[in-house]
Amino acid sequence: MIFSKNDKLVMIGDSITDTERKRPYGEGRGEATGKGYVSAVSALINSVYPELSLRIINMGISGNTVRSLKERWQTDVIDLQPDWVSIMIGINDVWRQYDQSVIKETHVYLEEYIRTLDELVKSTKPLVKGIILFTPFYIEPNANDAMRKTMDEYGRAVKEIAASNQTRFIDVQAAFQPVLEHTYPAELAWDRVHPNMTGHMVLARAFLKEVGFDWNKE
Amino acid sequence: MIFSKNDKLVMIGDSITDTERKRPYGEGRGEATGKGYVSAVSALINSVYPELSLRIINMGISGNTVRSLKERWQTDVIDLQPDWVSIMIGINDVWRQYDQSVIKETHVYLEEYIRTLDELVKSTKPLVKGIILFTPFYIEPNANDAMRKTMDEYGRAVKEIAASNQTRFIDVQAAFQPVLEHTYPAELAWDRVHPNMTGHMVLARAFLKEVGFDWNKE
Amino acid sequence: MIFSKNDKLVMIGDSITDTERKRPYGEGRGEATGKGYVSAVSALINSVYPELSLRIINMGISGNTVRSLKERWQTDVIDLQPDWVSIMIGINDVWRQYDQSVIKETHVYLEEYIRTLDELVKSTKPLVKGIILFTPFYIEPNANDAMRKTMDEYGRAVKEIAASNQTRFIDVQAAFQPVLEHTYPAELAWDRVHPNMTGHMVLARAFLKEVGFDWNKE
Amino acid sequence: MIFSKNDKLVMIGDSITDTERKRPYGEGRGEATGKGYVSAVSALINSVYPELSLRIINMGISGNTVRSLKERWQTDVIDLQPDWVSIMIGINDVWRQYDQSVIKETHVYLEEYIRTLDELVKSTKPLVKGIILFTPFYIEPNANDAMRKTMDEYGRAVKEIAASNQTRFIDVQAAFQPVLEHTYPAELAWDRVHPNMTGHMVLARAFLKEVGFDWNKE
Amino acid sequence: MIFSKNDKLVMIGDSITDTERKRPYGEGRGEATGKGYVSAVSALINSVYPELSLRIINMGISGNTVRSLKERWQTDVIDLQPDWVSIMIGINDVWRQYDQSVIKETHVYLEEYIRTLDELVKSTKPLVKGIILFTPFYIEPNANDAMRKTMDEYGRAVKEIAASNQTRFIDVQAAFQPVLEHTYPAELAWDRVHPNMTGHMVLARAFLKEVGFDWNKE
Amino acid sequence: MIFSKNDKLVMIGDSITDTERKRPYGEGRGEATGKGYVSAVSALINSVYPELSLRIINMGISGNTVRSLKERWQTDVIDLQPDWVSIMIGINDVWRQYDQSVIKETHVYLEEYIRTLDELVKSTKPLVKGIILFTPFYIEPNANDAMRKTMDEYGRAVKEIAASNQTRFIDVQAAFQPVLEHTYPAELAWDRVHPNMTGHMVLARAFLKEVGFDWNKE
Amino acid sequence: MIFSKNDKLVMIGDSITDTERKRPYGEGRGEATGKGYVSAVSALINSVYPELSLRIINMGISGNTVRSLKERWQTDVIDLQPDWVSIMIGINDVWRQYDQSVIKETHVYLEEYIRTLDELVKSTKPLVKGIILFTPFYIEPNANDAMRKTMDEYGRAVKEIAASNQTRFIDVQAAFQPVLEHTYPAELAWDRVHPNMTGHMVLARAFLKEVGFDWNKE
Amino acid sequence: MIFSKNDKLVMIGDSITDTERKRPYGEGRGEATGKGYVSAVSALINSVYPELSLRIINMGISGNTVRSLKERWQTDVIDLQPDWVSIMIGINDVWRQYDQSVIKETHVYLEEYIRTLDELVKSTKPLVKGIILFTPFYIEPNANDAMRKTMDEYGRAVKEIAASNQTRFIDVQAAFQPVLEHTYPAELAWDRVHPNMTGHMVLARAFLKEVGFDWNKE
Repeated sequence: MIFSKNDKLVMIGDSITDTERKRPYGEGRGEATGKGYVSAVSALINSVYPELSLRIINMGISGNTVRSLKERWQTDVIDLQPDWVSIMIGINDVWRQYDQSVIKETHVYLEEYIRTLDELVKSTKPLVKGIILFTPFYIEPNANDAMRKTMDEYGRAVKEIAASNQTRFIDVQAAFQPVLEHTYPAELAWDRVHPNMTGHMVLARAFLKEVGFDWNKE
Repeated sequence: MIFSKNDKLVMIGDSITDTERKRPYGEGRGEATGKGYVSAVSALINSVYPELSLRIINMGISGNTVRSLKERWQTDVIDLQPDWVSIMIGINDVWRQYDQSVIKETHVYLEEYIRTLDELVKSTKPLVKGIILFTPFYIEPNANDAMRKTMDEYGRAVKEIAASNQTRFIDVQAAFQPVLEHTYPAELAWDRVHPNMTGHMVLARAFLKEVGFDWNKE
Repeated sequence: MIFSKNDKLVMIGDSITDTERKRPYGEGRGEATGKGYVSAVSALINSVYPELSLRIINMGISGNTVRSLKERWQTDVIDLQPDWVSIMIGINDVWRQYDQSVIKETHVYLEEYIRTLDELVKSTKPLVKGIILFTPFYIEPNANDAMRKTMDEYGRAVKEIAASNQTRFIDVQAAFQPVLEHTYPAELAWDRVHPNMTGHMVLARAFLKEVGFDWNKE
Repeated sequence: MIFSKNDKLVMIGDSITDTERKRPYGEGRGEATGKGYVSAVSALINSVYPELSLRIINMGISGNTVRSLKERWQTDVIDLQPDWVSIMIGINDVWRQYDQSVIKETHVYLEEYIRTLDELVKSTKPLVKGIILFTPFYIEPNANDAMRKTMDEYGRAVKEIAASNQTRFIDVQAAFQPVLEHTYPAELAWDRVHPNMTGHMVLARAFLKEVGFDWNKE
Repeated sequence: MIFSKNDKLVMIGDSITDTERKRPYGEGRGEATGKGYVSAVSALINSVYPELSLRIINMGISGNTVRSLKERWQTDVIDLQPDWVSIMIGINDVWRQYDQSVIKETHVYLEEYIRTLDELVKSTKPLVKGIILFTPFYIEPNANDAMRKTMDEYGRAVKEIAASNQTRFIDVQAAFQPVLEHTYPAELAWDRVHPNMTGHMVLARAFLKEVGFDWNKE
Repeated sequence: MIFSKNDKLVMIGDSITDTERKRPYGEGRGEATGKGYVSAVSALINSVYPELSLRIINMGISGNTVRSLKERWQTDVIDLQPDWVSIMIGINDVWRQYDQSVIKETHVYLEEYIRTLDELVKSTKPLVKGIILFTPFYIEPNANDAMRKTMDEYGRAVKEIAASNQTRFIDVQAAFQPVLEHTYPAELAWDRVHPNMTGHMVLARAFLKEVGFDWNKE
Repeated sequence: MIFSKNDKLVMIGDSITDTERKRPYGEGRGEATGKGYVSAVSALINSVYPELSLRIINMGISGNTVRSLKERWQTDVIDLQPDWVSIMIGINDVWRQYDQSVIKETHVYLEEYIRTLDELVKSTKPLVKGIILFTPFYIEPNANDAMRKTMDEYGRAVKEIAASNQTRFIDVQAAFQPVLEHTYPAELAWDRVHPNMTGHMVLARAFLKEVGFDWNKE
Repeated sequence: MIFSKNDKLVMIGDSITDTERKRPYGEGRGEATGKGYVSAVSALINSVYPELSLRIINMGISGNTVRSLKERWQTDVIDLQPDWVSIMIGINDVWRQYDQSVIKETHVYLEEYIRTLDELVKSTKPLVKGIILFTPFYIEPNANDAMRKTMDEYGRAVKEIAASNQTRFIDVQAAFQPVLEHTYPAELAWDRVHPNMTGHMVLARAFLKEVGFDWNKE
């Protein structure tokens, strides 16, 4: 696995990351890391690699867009001096264009999204051991769905940012593909956005594969 | 994996299993399977093996002993016509002897524990494809601790029942062993009994290994 | 309008009808008729046709299928001696097949749906002045979506029952069509099922058109 | 209809407008526009004219008088840069004179009412496409009732302000007249002020008639 | 005063009497007699005539009509073996005709009202020292208001029942008259039915005058 | 009665006055004047003298001593520009000496009590039509009880302040005397301090007698 | 101390005993034995004599009189097969005569008190190792207070019952005497009945002295 | 006993001391001193030595370490001008090293612990009559348990600070020893840290022995 002993990993994002995590810092006893993929990642790493003493902090905040991340990046990421940062952002940037189409000041269009995310990655990279970028996703199997198409554009943008900045990269939409072949979206997420535990485990497993987690480790 | 398409798995036990599952049946939307190992098992199987359409029902009830299981076995297990049954019971049978030592009618001593569990297994085996028995456990690394010693006796009894009835068997205490080498009990469970998500993942992984789950399956 | 002075109209269905109506009878002060299309229908008729003194009773119950309606038909419809009955049912009959695919006892397949609805209509028709049947609907514009396709089948079944029993009929899916040409589903219903007030007004207007409501009446 | 694509309409007023709308801005998901005439207007326009993408923001605050509106006019109206503004104010200006007769600092007498409302209209008119003024109202059919007489005076003042400023105008008291011929006030509003949904639909329909809404539009 | 030492007085009625009294019996510590005229009567008598040890029990229940009183008369009046009974009933009998005009089974028309009240009085009179009948009332000064006119009819009926059965009698509507000459109804009761403390004191003083209470007693 | 049309009366004190009155000003709809003697005084005057339009404001705050009154006298009395002020203070000044004997900074001893109350009266008298001083009281019939003796001293001090400043004066302890001859303290106040409604009526009647209220006024 | 290893002690009574104990049985984890003298007795014995494994069950119920005890004696005492029973009852038997003087069916007069308590003691004595009787008490130092005098009579009755039945006996009123010489009642109990922790410790120490508890035991 | 009349004792610490005490000062009516050893100490001293009028203030705050105490020492101890100060601190200083091993900024290691506690004692000693130091403790009988060993180190440090500063000293771990010989930890504290009332009584008795409390005092 890519992590070393005593590494600190900050996982930031929107409601998919947040999942009722503890404030101000999502770490510690009880459900401090929330009830989603961060909690699953933490539980799997800590139960299989207890000797690493990996420190995972969930800094997701529901409703955030990349614009929101930028505003709190200094206090919520840089000041924590992480070794690793994972970012899953973009769903609200897109979703607001579709569920609040007339409230345009809540929309974050592609150009701003790319520019802002790239800026966060570029300025952070020199300070950490590594960055892991997730694509945003939409649990909608119909690739011609209007919102799915936009989400795919944002996903491609993340891929390009990852490539040009040489960060790690997780294609969440691709990870959901095999599950959606057998499972109707309503079984994973009533609103096609907020997954149940099965959906979060798709995220967690995609992350763990990217970081070299070994399930069969003794 | 040992499960076939459309199999139904009933997982029964005490508070470790219950974890605020839905009543009367621990299945369906939201956190219906609770917030512990059953939920983790369900999420991992459903995200990796969606084509199986495995039906998992959490029937744990907090505070239960094997005596309680016997009382509700017909309605809560047999009537559900499961293909598979997992049982994790015994912690309260032992714990009450140590935390309510004077309230003796709440204690279930070893002889009754063995007799009752064996009876449940024997009567159920012909009706199902298989039974998976978990040992009870205590997140206490000191093997000379009084309660740990008793718990180990109950664990050995489960092992013997599994062997004599030819059921599947999971040694939970053993599964915790490598984690406890690096982790102080208070980091897994404040009362050394109710694990946090890391502890529940130890249970889930032990179960999944026993049933042939393949993490790397495409 | 088809209603006469002092007529009593019972509107029955599932959560789309229920919308937190009063128990045991959805009529009277405050939000007794709920917060959806029944309330809108009631408000529009009572404000435009106050001289009719139309009595509208909301008898919807969240989660109901046509199977549930049958169980409570005597007490919740017949015993109220309505002049008119409207029925909107079928969404849960279909939805459970898609969001709880493994819990098969909650599914109501097409054959049972047709048989039961037809039976309710046939037995009730002689007792009332008229019946108004709504199709179930799904706020999903993609006609190839698996659940949408099934919903359309159930809708066609309602149309045939209406025709063979000569009842009034409202094609809700068709009523949503022009709105969906300009509006993304997430703007009408987060889960593509439970509409916001705009969606409910689509239902109300479709109903009012069918019963001859005149918006411009002085 | 008088509205063009993407127009923004701010509807401001007191509790009749407020109806538990979202803070700080009454727009967006759920019951953000409240549970009264604003919600009904929004639902009817959005369901019949979805192609307009009209943006409606409810800025009502319970208990407001015209004096309160003046205090928050800049932030709650002007800063939102609306294309259209509707104002329904005056009920509390009058009511406090009758239900808290000794607490005189809460009364807004006619002269101040006229002066303030006129000032708001005059200063706003150049900035918007149009203003729609509602009269205040009292659901009391007895034209000799003391409070009804005062309310009628305030209503006449609104009519004059509308005329002199050439704004659109809705006589709410007149709109209630035909309903009150068939309906006792207690059936519309327990306190003769806060209408139920039927009463709110009277307001909504009066508004929609004034703005050229076509119920029968395909 | 008409009461003797240790007399027991049961005061029964609807919400005007109930005022959140204690269940099942409205007597004892705290606000057991409610927050309305019964509490005021009790406080005035007990503070001025402490030597009487008068026992007052509030048996009002919100929403009651005379039909409801009849159903619970045996358990809630006769079984308590009172020396005196006061009855204030009829407001809901009338109100439901005006605020729920279409729900006719909740209306109690004049004939049934007279017959039932007379029957209760006749059957109870031989068992007690005396009965005090209140008229129902409506805090509406306009004698031509439809509901006020009906209420007045019910009031006249109470007067006749009192006369023919020779019971004590309190004309509540008359007691409100002088107050309404100076006070607008909204200052006494938002819905013109449920009075504030000032309105309840009108009731209490009317009662106390009838029973010979002496305010100036040393 | 001593009050003239439109007079404003501020009644200030501790929890006996407060009785859950509205904040920041104890006047207006509902139980704004609290649930004690202020409410009873208000209800009796407003029901018998509605033509006076007397404005009564309850400014009591639970736990207050005369020291607390002094701190808020400007904002809570003077700024309200009352015509009349009533003051009931001293119970907590004494009580704390008996129920928190070791927390001496909460005690207000006699010298400070006299000095402060006298100062408030002297500075206020020129600004108002009149001041009404209540003695503090203790619902304890045993005149040799330690706390009762202290309370009596404070009561005598109030009497002297009233005399030297020529204000109106109400001896509450004396008003309770005849009631206590027939009533055990526990029936009036569980803690011998906070009276039930009967006790509050003793206060209200004492006040009303002092201000010339005529119960028998038509 | 009089208790032997594994003895079971049932402590029954009214609210003084109850103190929010667990239902149905006041024993086990947390505050199961309540927050009063039973809890203090249990804590002191278990911390000083852990080797005894004494089982203490709190069976107090707030509001109970000796009449209430009789009704539940079989299920709440006898069926538990105690070795020892302590009884503290009588406060409500007396108190109701003073705080609800007119509600006579709630009073338990001396004759019934003596007869019932004697009967409970006589029937229970052969079944247990011993009975400990507490007197009821009143935290009122004035021996001429009416309620204190009655309470003293009931206390003397308990003393006689203890003597004639040869049970152990605790004079609670006497135990409070030295404390009341230095402490005003309000510092121990706001209502002179329900003691704070200091008051409960008076009860606990009196009990422990009677049963031979040795504070200085190593 | 070491205390003199009217002495003030401040007891400060972490959650073991806090036990839901009143804010900002843990003294006064009800459960102001909390529900633990401070409350027991207060109740025992006040019931046995009422003539002392000892003033005890609980200033514990849950989660505190010695670092937290230092931050609030001026306001929470010095400003209260105590005669005596007791300190029980260190459990969280140690515990965080074991239950949040990766969140290192929450750990207080031995060197800082000693330095800070010594500084607090040294600076306070000249201002008070005496200081009583408790050791921290861990209800774990296994002396080889990792956290128990660390706790013992901190306990020895307290002992040395007490000796070098000549303060009073209580070895809590030693006080638990005889109880743990007969009682399994789970019966005293589910998490081996927060004791039930029996555990708190161990603390209270250890304190009282140190200060010369005489249980048998008349």
